[in-house]
This record gives sequence, C-alpha cells and structure tokens, in this order.
Amino acid sequence: MWTPEKSEGPARGQAHTAAGSSRQKVISVLLYCTGEMTHFSKIMEDKPFPVQLVEWVLRGVSRVILANNPVSGALILGALVMASPWQALMGTVGLLASTLTAVIIGQDSAEIAGGLHGFNGMLVALLMGVFSAAGDWYWWLLLPACLGGATCTFLFSGLAPLLDRWDLPVAVFPFNMVIVLFLACTGPNNPYFPHNPATPPGAPEALNHTQLHVPEVLQGVVVGVGQIYACGAFGPSLLILGAVLVFSPIMAIHALLGSGIGTLVGLSMAVRHSALYSGLSGFNGALGCMAVGGLFFTFSWRTHLFAIASAFMSAYTDIALSNLLGTVGLPACSWGATLIATLMLLLTARHLSAYRIAIGRVGSPEHNLVTHRHWEEGAKEDSTDV
Amino acid sequence: MWTPEKSEGPARGQAHTAAGSSRQKVISVLLYCTGEMTHFSKIMEDKPFPVQLVEWVLRGVSRVILANNPVSGALILGALVMASPWQALMGTVGLLASTLTAVIIGQDSAEIAGGLHGFNGMLVALLMGVFSAAGDWYWWLLLPACLGGATCTFLFSGLAPLLDRWDLPVAVFPFNMVIVLFLACTGPNNPYFPHNPATPPGAPEALNHTQLHVPEVLQGVVVGVGQIYACGAFGPSLLILGAVLVFSPIMAIHALLGSGIGTLVGLSMAVRHSALYSGLSGFNGALGCMAVGGLFFTFSWRTHLFAIASAFMSAYTDIALSNLLGTVGLPACSWGATLIATLMLLLTARHLSAYRIAIGRVGSPEHNLVTHRHWEEGAKEDSTDV
Amino acid sequence: MWTPEKSEGPARGQAHTAAGSSRQKVISVLLYCTGEMTHFSKIMEDKPFPVQLVEWVLRGVSRVILANNPVSGALILGALVMASPWQALMGTVGLLASTLTAVIIGQDSAEIAGGLHGFNGMLVALLMGVFSAAGDWYWWLLLPACLGGATCTFLFSGLAPLLDRWDLPVAVFPFNMVIVLFLACTGPNNPYFPHNPATPPGAPEALNHTQLHVPEVLQGVVVGVGQIYACGAFGPSLLILGAVLVFSPIMAIHALLGSGIGTLVGLSMAVRHSALYSGLSGFNGALGCMAVGGLFFTFSWRTHLFAIASAFMSAYTDIALSNLLGTVGLPACSWGATLIATLMLLLTARHLSAYRIAIGRVGSPEHNLVTHRHWEEGAKEDSTDV
Repeated sequence: MWTPEKSEGPARGQAHTAAGSSRQKVISVLLYCTGEMTHFSKIMEDKPFPVQLVEWVLRGVSRVILANNPVSGALILGALVMASPWQALMGTVGLLASTLTAVIIGQDSAEIAGGLHGFNGMLVALLMGVFSAAGDWYWWLLLPACLGGATCTFLFSGLAPLLDRWDLPVAVFPFNMVIVLFLACTGPNNPYFPHNPATPPGAPEALNHTQLHVPEVLQGVVVGVGQIYACGAFGPSLLILGAVLVFSPIMAIHALLGSGIGTLVGLSMAVRHSALYSGLSGFNGALGCMAVGGLFFTFSWRTHLFAIASAFMSAYTDIALSNLLGTVGLPACSWGATLIATLMLLLTARHLSAYRIAIGRVGSPEHNLVTHRHWEEGAKEDSTDV
Repeated sequence: MWTPEKSEGPARGQAHTAAGSSRQKVISVLLYCTGEMTHFSKIMEDKPFPVQLVEWVLRGVSRVILANNPVSGALILGALVMASPWQALMGTVGLLASTLTAVIIGQDSAEIAGGLHGFNGMLVALLMGVFSAAGDWYWWLLLPACLGGATCTFLFSGLAPLLDRWDLPVAVFPFNMVIVLFLACTGPNNPYFPHNPATPPGAPEALNHTQLHVPEVLQGVVVGVGQIYACGAFGPSLLILGAVLVFSPIMAIHALLGSGIGTLVGLSMAVRHSALYSGLSGFNGALGCMAVGGLFFTFSWRTHLFAIASAFMSAYTDIALSNLLGTVGLPACSWGATLIATLMLLLTARHLSAYRIAIGRVGSPEHNLVTHRHWEEGAKEDSTDV
Repeated sequence: MWTPEKSEGPARGQAHTAAGSSRQKVISVLLYCTGEMTHFSKIMEDKPFPVQLVEWVLRGVSRVILANNPVSGALILGALVMASPWQALMGTVGLLASTLTAVIIGQDSAEIAGGLHGFNGMLVALLMGVFSAAGDWYWWLLLPACLGGATCTFLFSGLAPLLDRWDLPVAVFPFNMVIVLFLACTGPNNPYFPHNPATPPGAPEALNHTQLHVPEVLQGVVVGVGQIYACGAFGPSLLILGAVLVFSPIMAIHALLGSGIGTLVGLSMAVRHSALYSGLSGFNGALGCMAVGGLFFTFSWRTHLFAIASAFMSAYTDIALSNLLGTVGLPACSWGATLIATLMLLLTARHLSAYRIAIGRVGSPEHNLVTHRHWEEGAKEDSTDV
C-alpha cells in the first residue's frame, strides 16, 4: 500500500554488533520474521524468477492489510485456504494476474518485488468470488478474476502520477474502482456472471426485530479484521490477526481497536445485526485506524488519538456510502477507509502533519519509531546525514 | 470562504488623514462597520480568549454568505434567532465545534481568527436541523452537529493542499460533503436521527397544478438570499440581505440579482412552485453571482457579465444535481454554486482571468476595487512595491 | 481533442524539395488533403473572419473523431446531413455557439483556429437532438443547444489548467458533463424539453429473446464508428469512416478494430441485441482504440497491443457506467472511452510511456511516426535541435 522503503538496514545491524549478548541473539532470531524483512529480500535477489515470484506474491498478500512481510502473507494465505479453498485460489489467481501484468507492461521492478502490484488484484478476485451467485468452483470466474487483476495494475500505474503530486499512496483505489465497475457491468441478471446485490445496512427490510447478541458482537470485532480479506469466519480471522502481529504489534492493536470502533459506529447508526456479527461494520474502521496509527505517521499519543478519529470517520463514511451505493445494489467495499486515510495524509493540521512520514520512507510502525528517534538524535548531535 | 487578506490598512489610513474634513469623519465612522473590519481584528488581538472567540464566531457566521465582518455576523445571527431559536442554537453549536476542533488539531491561527474554520460546521448543523424529522429541540441532534462540525474542519484541512495547487478556495466543499454523507448515513428510517428525504424539483409528483403567484415569486427572490442559511422566512432574509449590505453594497446587489436569475432558471425548467416561493431555486444563483461579481474578481462590466453567466450556470447545475441526488432522497445543497464558482476561478479565458484576484489578497469588493486601482496607478508611476 | 501541434512544416517541406520527382508530386497533391493540413491553415490566415470561421468549424467537426482536417470535417458534415438534416443543423448550431463563445470570452486564438472549442458543443447539441422526445424540427431545442455549447467552452477553459498539470488533454470531458447535467436537469417529464430516458444495456426488460443476427452485428461494427456522432445509419457511418481515412489510415483501422472489440465485449456481457446492431456497444471501444493507437502514442506493435487493451477497458467501462447511470435514466455517453484514454495517458509503465507524445506535439499518427523517426535520427547525429 506504500512504496517500498529504502532499507535502513545498517542502523539495525549496528545495534546488533553493539549489543552482542546471547539474550539479544535469541531476540534477533525471533525478530528475523518480524517487520519488513528487508534482509530476506536481499537473500532472494539471486534466486530464480519463480522463487522470487513466490516472495512477491506473499508480500502482496500481506499488503492488503497494510503489512509487508512474506511470513505474514503465508499465514494469511493459510487462513484463507482454511476458510475456503476456492476463495484462496481466486485470490491467488488475481494476485498473479496483477503481478505478471505489471512485469509485462514494464512497471518499476522494485515496486513489483515489494508486492505493490498484487494486492489490488487479489482483493478484486476475492470480492468477485464473494459476490458471485454461481457458487464455488465456477471455473469461468477465473477469467474476470484475471482481467480484473490486470486492470488493477493499469489503474495503479495511472493513478500513481496523479496522487504522487501530494505524496499520497495509491492504496486500494484501483481495487475499489474495478470491483464497483465489474459488479455494475455484470449486474444481478447477467447470464454468465450473475451476482448477489449488496444489501445496504440501513435498508428498511434490514430493520432489527431481534435482541442484540453481545458475544456475537464481540466475535464480530475480531471477524472485522478478517473481513479485510472478505473472510467472515472466526478462526481464520484470528490467524489473520496473528499474521499482523508478526509484522507489527502496534498494527495488530490498532486493527482490533479500529474494528471495535467500527462496530460501535454500526450500533450508533442501528445497522442490521448481521452486519455487526459478520464484521462488515468493523473492517473499514480497522483499516482507517491502522493507516494512521503507526504506519503513515510516527506512533505517539497524538497520532493514536487521530487514529481513533480516523476509525470513526472511516466507519461513518462506510455506512453512508453503503447506503448510497446500496440503492443500485453495489457494495461500498473499502471506499470509506481509503478516502478517510487519504484525507488524513493530506491534513495540514500541525499536530498531525508533524508526524507524517514521507511515502518513500514508510516501514513497519516499530521501524518508523526507531527511524524517527534517530532523526531527533541526529538533529541534536549533527545534522549531516539522514 | 477565502483566506484572510493581508490588511492594506495604511492606504485607507492615508485617505483619512488627507481628507480631514468633518463630513468625511462622519463617513469614516459609518465606514468603521463596513468592509473587512481588519482594524477591529487588531483591537481584539490583546483580548482574552473567550472575547476573541466571539469575534471569530461572528466572522465565521458571515463567511457563509461570502462576507467577512463581525457586525454582519451579529446581524445574521439575530436574523436566525428571529426565524427559529433552535436553528440558531444548532448553527452556533456546529460553528463552535468546528472552530474549537481547528484550535485543538493545530490549524493556522490566522485562518481560525478569520472565521475560516467555522462556516462549514455552521452550515452542516443548520441543514441537519432543517432535514431532521424529529422536530425542534430534539437535544440529541446536538451530538451529530458537533461531530459534523469537527469533520468539516478535518475536510477543510485536507482539501486545502489539494485545491491550493490551483489557488482555489476550499469554500463550502466540506459542508456539501459532510451533509450528504450524514443524510446518506442516517437515511429516512434511522431510529435515532430520522430525516425527511429531499424532493427533487422535477419529480413527477411535484408537477404544478396551480396558477403561479407572482408576488410570492418576487418574495422568493429575497428569501433566496436567506436560504443560504437554510432560512425560509421573509423578514430574517431581509435582515440577512442588510447584513451583506453592511459588508459590501456590490455583494448585496449581486446576491439579489443572482437570486432573481436562479428564480428565472427555475421558471424556465418548470420546477414546482413551492421551490420558487421558498427561495430554494434562488440561493445557488445568488452564491454563484456573488462569488464572481466583485469577490474573487475585480468588479467591472466584464466581471458583471461573467457573474450573470455564473448565476445561470449555478442555478441550472443545482436543478440537475437536485434531480440526480433526489432519486436517492438527498438534497443538492450548494454543490451547484460551489462547483461553478470553482470553475470560474479556473477559467483561463483572457477576459475574465485578467480580473482574477489571488486568494490571499481577496477582500471586500470595494476594497478589491481600491487595491486594483492602486495596482494600475502603481504600475504607471513606479513598479517597485505591491 | 488535443492542443494544436506547433506545425513541423519545414521537415515536410524539406522532404518535398529533396524528392522532386513527378511521381512524388502526384502523391503530394493527394497528400494535400490528408493529415493535419497545416499548410491550409496558413493560406486561410489572411482571409476574412467568416471564411476563417468555416475552416475552424470544419476542423471542429473532425475533432470529435480525434481527427483535425477540414476536408474530413466537410465529409462528416455531409454524412450527418445525409442521415438527418435536423441533426446536422443542431450540431452546427452547437458548434458555432461554442466557438463564438470562445471568441467572446477571449480564449487563445490558436486553440480556436484549431477547432478545439467547437467539438464539445457540437456533441452536446447532437445528443440533445437524439434524446429529445419532441421530434425533429422542434425549434425551441436550438436554445439549449446554444446554451449547452457555450457552457462547454466554459468547462473546456476551466478544466484545461486542471488537466494540464499532468499534460492531459481536456478531450470530451466538457461534453460528457454538460449532456448528463442537461438530461438530469430537464428530466423525462419536463414540459418544455422532454426527453427519452436511456435504457441500460443490462436492464431486465432488455433480455434477449431472439436469435443473434450475425450480418447485422457486422454492420453494427461499422455503425459504431458513426455512433461517435450519434448517427445510427450504415451509409453515413461508412462516409464518416472514409473521412477518418482521409485524415489517417492508421486511425481508420483502429476505429474499425476498436468498434469490433466493443461489439465483442457487448457479446461477452450479453447486452441487448439492439445495442449491438445500432453500434452503441462499439463506439466507446473505437474511441479508446483510436486515442492510444497512433494519436497520443507513436505507432508500434507495443502501442497497438495497448490500443487493443484500451478498447477492451473502454467498452467494459462503458457497459458498467451505462448500467449505473441507466438506473436514473441517463446515458453513459463517451465517459468510458474518455476516462480510459486519460488513464492510458497517465500510465507510468515503461513499455507504453516511452511512446507517449507530449500533447503540444500531437499530430496525425503518420506525422507522429515521421517526427519520432526524426527524433531518433537526430539523437544519433546531433542533439541540438528538436
């Protein structure tokens, strides 16, 4: 979701040599699989193309949830297979189509290696599968999944120079555009690719006649994290949350917090209970919260408050857009979170913009914190490097 | 609606000292309350925060109608209390929420002092009150009014760098976005915040079966100015027009002219009669006419003609958008005027762009005229300063 | 559709003097009417205003189909008169209104002379005529045709600085905006300007109960080129295709190819048969294919493949937008092709962007090819000029 950071490996390396104790060695082994794993990319550079492609694909899988870590990607792919093998296949096909299109049309190879040209295609394919009315293992659906994935790469490449003027990431704009166009194109009556129309959360027929079931709501908060991958089962969602934890604990906390805020927002607007239980109310809040809390801004109590505000706004915008697009049977996907996160990145307000990290320097939240501390120290001692 | 101009006080001061006669002293006392009142802002700088806040709020109130004058703001607030105390309360709460959010998140203090972070929040709160189906004094409505106001400040802060690239003002874009999202979010069936859906002016059920009543149409032209504050009563609308007159006679004339053009446009499209009588047809024309005639362009016969064209386009765009958004029960608010005024500011046509005033230098139309004349004279004599 | 290229006449002149043989003289006479005819513009410079206006209008007519040649324009106007004299009148009135507005508000005279301020107005007037439910020779319709044409010029002038930041052409964005606003403004029940609502291609009532008639589909591919001028007859469409051939054979091939791809896309989405027969499925594909194949990019096998991709995406986007806008009775016009062509121009992918021609240098595809070859040769020998 952001351009791959220029690895600041030496700083971490220095820390290792300075410490040297065996306790830190154990930690460093544990740390090997966390964060951005830029060292792993370097090892992979000499490997043959198919092996490299696997790493790109796994990074692409993790990009969906704002992470950038092949181990997280493998865990998430496992969770998807657990939830539905057909969905996992659809996602992988979309991701491959998208990544290979990027290779063919000549996109920047560093971006491809970072998985930047895969996650939009994966999401499009996953959503095609979820909305399809033809059931699982309808093999013809792989055709639009491939075409949709390829179109995502075109959109990514075209939107980049537009958004770059304001140092904004392309994020999941391509996915949101392509899936809305695909669903509008086929329509519910299409003879080849029929789909179920989306139900707006505030539709009259969706009014709640039953009692709210609190444990299910709490479960829905966790499933909200899984819904980022259109996965509505509890177990796989927990595994996806674990995958985020591997990448960054700060992100995992913000994911849960944002999903909870989204559920609260759903309650305040009296959406239908099924939306709360299935985590559909929560996932936009989770994305909005994760983007601001630690990823694009250095983590601090101020950005934490802004992350909460972002989660609230994302969830409300999602309900509004769901109601609007629902009148023509379309879902709002993650438009809410994407628009609000983009808004937060544009904010000129001094108390937030001071923590903004340039898109080219974004890493994991923990890495951002270290880099920021280095900046401050560097500014005190000498201001030559950084 | 524009960034506060760097006061060109000395020029006005010189005129005073040069004249000196008692007749001009009387005029200068009368003039004290007109225009931008930048001298008043200087007096207020040393005052305690609550007193300053009152000035900011009053400026914010007048910003809605493109003015920037605390006396105008006080008059308008009086008019709103006259029309409906509940609406006046809603507006004030929205304005305060919006302004205080700007203080908290660290927006530029000069912008806050100019009332730039208040008028969008005020409009959102006013429209929430108008569309609410829960009746007056439904206290829970103050909660969304506060949240909506705060969101406006976020949007203002985020849209500013986007629009700044083309030297465009943020104007009422945040208001238009937030109110549409709020109404889409709650929907007509919401159990907590129900609202009346907007009726499109061209809806089949809105066809006119009665004779047009000309005096009511003429009254509707004046009420069109009041509709900028969602106020549909004749008396308060007249007072609001008076408040504009205090700020600038040129603006007041353009407000009436634009409202008249908007009403004509409504007649040409055979909108339902109630829209004509209530001034709903006129207010977009009024805003479009005021923005071009004197405010963002130096007043001349050419800009006057462009102001008329702008009023026509604003009114037609408003009807089109009202019909479109009306299909999902949403109002078009002031999208028409905002989009067309933005278009006029972007115009590269030589006969208009020559009169364009940079956003940072915009003052009252009369002040713009004086400054422009100074430019021309300065260009003839010596071109060192300005 | 693009800004007039700075004529590279000397290069062509040189080629003439260098050749000199009689065979080439014959070719040069034939070539006189092909391409951009920049030499003809020079002859016209001294002529009185009405004569010049005729050239501007004819160039404007050809601009609709991405050509820039007065002979093509005359042929197309003939085709339109053949198809429907009323439609031809409407188009001419819209074109004149648009061009004269540009003269009055002071647009750049080189742009006006290139017909850049006419084609949007012409399209708006043509579509007004097609959608009008009042039948032919309803003289009042000339009033909105004039106003719509004038508004197009305003939009063209205002969008230019926005799009110019990314070196994008304004294209038919003004037409698409104005016609959608006009149709939304009047609505199907308007007493003065009633219109027939557009039928979405995927509407349930549009399901196909009859056998597909292949010869009619093939005829529809040719009519698809005519549909760019909202002309649904076979003969005039053939003449329009001939007019494109006069301007550039590469463009004519891409027009047919794109229209064929659009028809294929229509088949793949099972649109109603009448849309295939009438060429409505094909014209967005044709426009998308022409823009990429040779016009804004130097012709090569790579850009040819991208042109095919562009045709596919344009056609799918058109179906999606038609279904979406069709829910409120509006047509998608050429939004699909315009958006996708703009996307292709923004693409950073190396294998396409290397062939991108700066908007100010765009000529006919054949001229682009020659210029590009000159560049490459110039770069090898000396890199001082170009």
